Amino acid sequence: MSARRAAAALCLDDFEALARRHLPRPVFGYVAGATERNESLADNAAAFAEWAFLPRVLRDVSRRRTVRVLFGREWAAPFGIAPMGLAALAAYRGDIVLARAAAQAGVPMILSGSSLIRMEEVIAANPEAWFQAYLPGDARRIEALIDRAAAAGFRTLILTVDVAVLPNRENNVRNGFSTPLRPSLRLLWQGLTHPRWSVGTFLRTWLRHGMPHFENSFAERGAPILSRHVERDFTARDHLNWEHLALIRRRWPGILIVKGVLHPEDARRAAGEGAEGVIVSNHGGRQLDGAVAALRVLPALRQAVGGITLMLDGGIRRGTDVLKALALGADFVFVGRPMLYAAAVAGEAGVARAIALLKGEIDRNMALLGIERLEELSPECLIRRR
Amino acid sequence: MSARRAAAALCLDDFEALARRHLPRPVFGYVAGATERNESLADNAAAFAEWAFLPRVLRDVSRRRTVRVLFGREWAAPFGIAPMGLAALAAYRGDIVLARAAAQAGVPMILSGSSLIRMEEVIAANPEAWFQAYLPGDARRIEALIDRAAAAGFRTLILTVDVAVLPNRENNVRNGFSTPLRPSLRLLWQGLTHPRWSVGTFLRTWLRHGMPHFENSFAERGAPILSRHVERDFTARDHLNWEHLALIRRRWPGILIVKGVLHPEDARRAAGEGAEGVIVSNHGGRQLDGAVAALRVLPALRQAVGGITLMLDGGIRRGTDVLKALALGADFVFVGRPMLYAAAVAGEAGVARAIALLKGEIDRNMALLGIERLEELSPECLIRRR
Amino acid sequence: MSARRAAAALCLDDFEALARRHLPRPVFGYVAGATERNESLADNAAAFAEWAFLPRVLRDVSRRRTVRVLFGREWAAPFGIAPMGLAALAAYRGDIVLARAAAQAGVPMILSGSSLIRMEEVIAANPEAWFQAYLPGDARRIEALIDRAAAAGFRTLILTVDVAVLPNRENNVRNGFSTPLRPSLRLLWQGLTHPRWSVGTFLRTWLRHGMPHFENSFAERGAPILSRHVERDFTARDHLNWEHLALIRRRWPGILIVKGVLHPEDARRAAGEGAEGVIVSNHGGRQLDGAVAALRVLPALRQAVGGITLMLDGGIRRGTDVLKALALGADFVFVGRPMLYAAAVAGEAGVARAIALLKGEIDRNMALLGIERLEELSPECLIRRR
Amino acid sequence: MSARRAAAALCLDDFEALARRHLPRPVFGYVAGATERNESLADNAAAFAEWAFLPRVLRDVSRRRTVRVLFGREWAAPFGIAPMGLAALAAYRGDIVLARAAAQAGVPMILSGSSLIRMEEVIAANPEAWFQAYLPGDARRIEALIDRAAAAGFRTLILTVDVAVLPNRENNVRNGFSTPLRPSLRLLWQGLTHPRWSVGTFLRTWLRHGMPHFENSFAERGAPILSRHVERDFTARDHLNWEHLALIRRRWPGILIVKGVLHPEDARRAAGEGAEGVIVSNHGGRQLDGAVAALRVLPALRQAVGGITLMLDGGIRRGTDVLKALALGADFVFVGRPMLYAAAVAGEAGVARAIALLKGEIDRNMALLGIERLEELSPECLIRRR
Repeated sequence: MSARRAAAALCLDDFEALARRHLPRPVFGYVAGATERNESLADNAAAFAEWAFLPRVLRDVSRRRTVRVLFGREWAAPFGIAPMGLAALAAYRGDIVLARAAAQAGVPMILSGSSLIRMEEVIAANPEAWFQAYLPGDARRIEALIDRAAAAGFRTLILTVDVAVLPNRENNVRNGFSTPLRPSLRLLWQGLTHPRWSVGTFLRTWLRHGMPHFENSFAERGAPILSRHVERDFTARDHLNWEHLALIRRRWPGILIVKGVLHPEDARRAAGEGAEGVIVSNHGGRQLDGAVAALRVLPALRQAVGGITLMLDGGIRRGTDVLKALALGADFVFVGRPMLYAAAVAGEAGVARAIALLKGEIDRNMALLGIERLEELSPECLIRRR
Repeated sequence: MSARRAAAALCLDDFEALARRHLPRPVFGYVAGATERNESLADNAAAFAEWAFLPRVLRDVSRRRTVRVLFGREWAAPFGIAPMGLAALAAYRGDIVLARAAAQAGVPMILSGSSLIRMEEVIAANPEAWFQAYLPGDARRIEALIDRAAAAGFRTLILTVDVAVLPNRENNVRNGFSTPLRPSLRLLWQGLTHPRWSVGTFLRTWLRHGMPHFENSFAERGAPILSRHVERDFTARDHLNWEHLALIRRRWPGILIVKGVLHPEDARRAAGEGAEGVIVSNHGGRQLDGAVAALRVLPALRQAVGGITLMLDGGIRRGTDVLKALALGADFVFVGRPMLYAAAVAGEAGVARAIALLKGEIDRNMALLGIERLEELSPECLIRRR
Repeated sequence: MSARRAAAALCLDDFEALARRHLPRPVFGYVAGATERNESLADNAAAFAEWAFLPRVLRDVSRRRTVRVLFGREWAAPFGIAPMGLAALAAYRGDIVLARAAAQAGVPMILSGSSLIRMEEVIAANPEAWFQAYLPGDARRIEALIDRAAAAGFRTLILTVDVAVLPNRENNVRNGFSTPLRPSLRLLWQGLTHPRWSVGTFLRTWLRHGMPHFENSFAERGAPILSRHVERDFTARDHLNWEHLALIRRRWPGILIVKGVLHPEDARRAAGEGAEGVIVSNHGGRQLDGAVAALRVLPALRQAVGGITLMLDGGIRRGTDVLKALALGADFVFVGRPMLYAAAVAGEAGVARAIALLKGEIDRNMALLGIERLEELSPECLIRRR
Repeated sequence: MSARRAAAALCLDDFEALARRHLPRPVFGYVAGATERNESLADNAAAFAEWAFLPRVLRDVSRRRTVRVLFGREWAAPFGIAPMGLAALAAYRGDIVLARAAAQAGVPMILSGSSLIRMEEVIAANPEAWFQAYLPGDARRIEALIDRAAAAGFRTLILTVDVAVLPNRENNVRNGFSTPLRPSLRLLWQGLTHPRWSVGTFLRTWLRHGMPHFENSFAERGAPILSRHVERDFTARDHLNWEHLALIRRRWPGILIVKGVLHPEDARRAAGEGAEGVIVSNHGGRQLDGAVAALRVLPALRQAVGGITLMLDGGIRRGTDVLKALALGADFVFVGRPMLYAAAVAGEAGVARAIALLKGEIDRNMALLGIERLEELSPECLIRRR
């Protein structure tokens, strides 16, 4: 059943169309939406479309491989699953689903700090999962959370730095979504008209696991998504600064990645502070509306930071997008929304399908570009269309 | 009631949608419309969209403030309310409403010279209101009007200089609007189908205050808006020149601002003639259709005029727009139509909401940009999208 | 009646909308249409939209005038009526209507060589009319036609040079139009559903003046528009070359203008051969589809030809378009289709209205630009929008 | 009947509209579609639209000719018919139809290696047909196929090099098309609702010639289009490399052309390996989605390869497109889809009409450009519109 639903998708965008029907509007809108005028969201897609390929021909590409080594580990493809909050609201046990599918396919998966399933359960499902933390500018709470992540067994920590405040998510209000979720007639109606989600995701979660809480914002359990106390989880984020990064660096024993950087100077400083990698990102267009698309600044960051690991997310929907990002200087990319749509629509089979589709496109397009290894990609493979 | 209507708006553009339903088409069209092909109106929005932000991260932004000092007075936000003619036709006692809400919120409000409420009443409602004058090239009338404004207690005078003639407002004819308003079946029908406006604004005004007149075009009372003699108010405007500015400068004891400048040479000359500030503006696209968007020439004017106070209006609908204008050289901006829509839809509560929304966006986006004071904004915060 | 129809138009484009309803589709399509993909037609409008104005302020513009001297004669405005073939098919006695309205308004009118009314009648209606000739590469026929024009009293001759062959006017076939007009059920139906045109223009013409002929292609009368022999009129046009221009120059006693030039080298050569003026034009997009908009090459031609009189047509619909063309180097412009729409919709009153509207826009926008004489226009008045 | 259907088309795009109605959706979609997001397909058209013409005037163009010499043979026009797979599925005996119409009109026709009619039959219909081969990286099979082509009498061989793997033709799945064709209710329904195609093309083929096979992928007959074994035909294509080209060059006695080149370096190498010509192409947007439009890189390739014959396909729909490609450096162009649509809609009469329309446009537009020979075309004839 879910395998058939997964097979109906021929590309990542198909999962979005399927999820739009499957999910109640508040939930779909929460995942799909961005902020204010959605300028950054649109820019993420537009930035890719401005580049065209200049392929090479008559090269034996029969031994091509899509693998990529990152921090000493070889992954099956040059992309992973980006962290997404509230995944378990869109898909039953969403984070576990994403984690398992990623493990199965040999790609990295990043657990969001705004997730509703305890990180200890997720790493049990995928011992190589990475953990993304939303941290306040408060040394005690920072230490408590990262100690917990280390104790749970995470070896890679992503610190998201583009969330000084909660953004202006008007789309949530317009779609009838809020955290905490406020019961309303509209919400009830949406639930009734989307019974597959209401029963298969929402009720099933509640009955088996109880009311979902933000489980990974603190060392202790956070606010439940149906309470009014959720704001507490977000206090003091606007105090976070480079000194806290230094503190984290001293305390965190594993790999440290800074996510949400767009300015070359910040990337350089992150490297200087001992971060092993940077994820260039405008948070999928969900934070500062008007923030430039990551792809537009990628070449400048590549030049600024030299050898540090540079990753990118935002707007990746096709294998060609992955190849363009790599050609312009990314070592790796992350894909968000489409993976969660796939999980919502068809569970683990859906995510497996999404990963396979994207990997298949990369493989096919490497052949058509005339390359066997991703390392052959460079700006010379591209030409600006305007 | 009006508080609920105000709360329904999540951003400034929402007030436009609400006002479109609330106001009779001739009145809404008068406010919303521009001139000829509306090229300048469209350009005002387009000019902002061409810039993207390059935010900074990991800075403690917990002590950020949206305040801005202008001519020695600290305002709560870097924006004010632009002068708009006939405000009292769209909202009951519109100018008073705008004046009070601005005073309450701590932002400047500019009273239009084409307003229908005596300036003496407006300054009584907001002792810090500014006065914008439409002046003919006639020394006697100039002196009479500015003397009246000074006597009324205004300390800041804005001279609008982009109105040498009445523009080609075809849209007014198409929407059935004219000054003077000419009674017609169409107007009657519009009145009947918009009873909340007809009773709450039009009849209420007429019954309590009598037929509205242009009250601030002359020292004496001007033509009523339901007469045929209104043209008299606009005579000799095309004679106005730099010598009149010099005359005004000599006679006006307060702060003098020139509004409607787009050419660097004119900005420089205005400063040379003793003006304390310049408002870069194409009059909301309502005068010369095709006149360039103020934002496009702002950097050149900033460079041309050095330290003089440079303000801008036209196209500001979001906090990000305000931040872009400030980054490109503006010291302050003014917002027009949305404030009047808010007044029309929900009176003082509406305007308070509009101000709060815009200020909230500025505060939030300052945090996401990584700045605590508006003075940190510079062209380096931006990157052209094309 | 026709005065009321004229007054319904608030700008030139309104006449197009009115004519679309008034005229049978084959006739409207003939006038409105261009060639192949209509790329040049669209480019004519797009080229104007890329420029914005940089107006000046605080200049006394009370003595501004829209007059322009051309070849020693002062015209009331810097525009005239472009030559249009088959004008008498769209408007009853169309060429006479255009000629009279132009004379009345003090602007030049060019009679098309493809017109259906004898040039002798037109110059009787407007002794200052200019004559535009379509000439074959055949000395005898050239001499016969220009001798006839000189004898008729024309003092200005325009030689159109962008018509080496009949273009690909698919739109005519799609709209059911052809020269000669071929009777068909479709044509009959169009006639029945547009009775005001059928009776007021077509039947009235036929009954009073007989079947229309091409009257000005030769010294003698040309083919009737309802015959199959019309092609004869177009023979040998592709032989026309610079030697013929030299021949014309030697024989024509008056002012000689070359129309349809886009390349600077051709403009220079035309001047070298003794032409007094050049009309930069892509024939309203009706000849080579893809030919560049005249406005785009105007600055290069201005630079190439120095002092020769440079005129432009194509895409002019507003006073601002006229001002942009003049700022970029044109001495004068011509307006085509809108004038014929005005004649079709409301006869001489319509054309008078169209001229007055355009002249009014020029006057008003000169004031808003801060100029009193058209000679003050220069490229400095403009700024590219992209 | 088919002559009337042919005459209904006034330009090449009209055949597409006619074919859309005539063909079952799976078949039309196969021909019309491209790959993934159809970016390269759209870019092919967009690239032409960015150029405008700068025509010359007053030149005698009465002796103009559209002929072009290619490899020592003079063709009636500077375009030929591009290779298209499965032509016989869209039009009854499609390859024969295209071959005959091309022979009749004096333009080259390229038989696709994915065709369903034996090359020996096609060359019998048109002794000057060219053969395009899809070749695996396997010397034995290469030699077998090109020996067969030589034996059949082909003198020009095109090696397509942009097909290392089968592309991602989602559109085929979405339209219900696959190779092999899989019987389905949907397919049946399409057949029933398109009876003229079902009877006149599909049944007629099956009854007279049996189940169609891929006839020209190997020396021997390939898989039938209604089997599951078609993949075999595509094995080892990703091994193909420059050494195979050298092998082909040594063995092939005639003219050798490499098709599918976009990078200047590859064009140079092809010339160095002894190829007489290169076809610059992104395979009509059907291989690597995002591959740049051929026209965009044409000038760079022209500069890189010097005197070698440079041809182009992709996006040509008008005579002006042909002229633009020639002006930017192409010696010749090829037109694909429109020719097959014409064959589908009206057989040989359709293709003859399509060729005549395009040739007519070239002739007419040469006159309007002011040239008599195609050799006069150069980049100076064009100007970028943006």
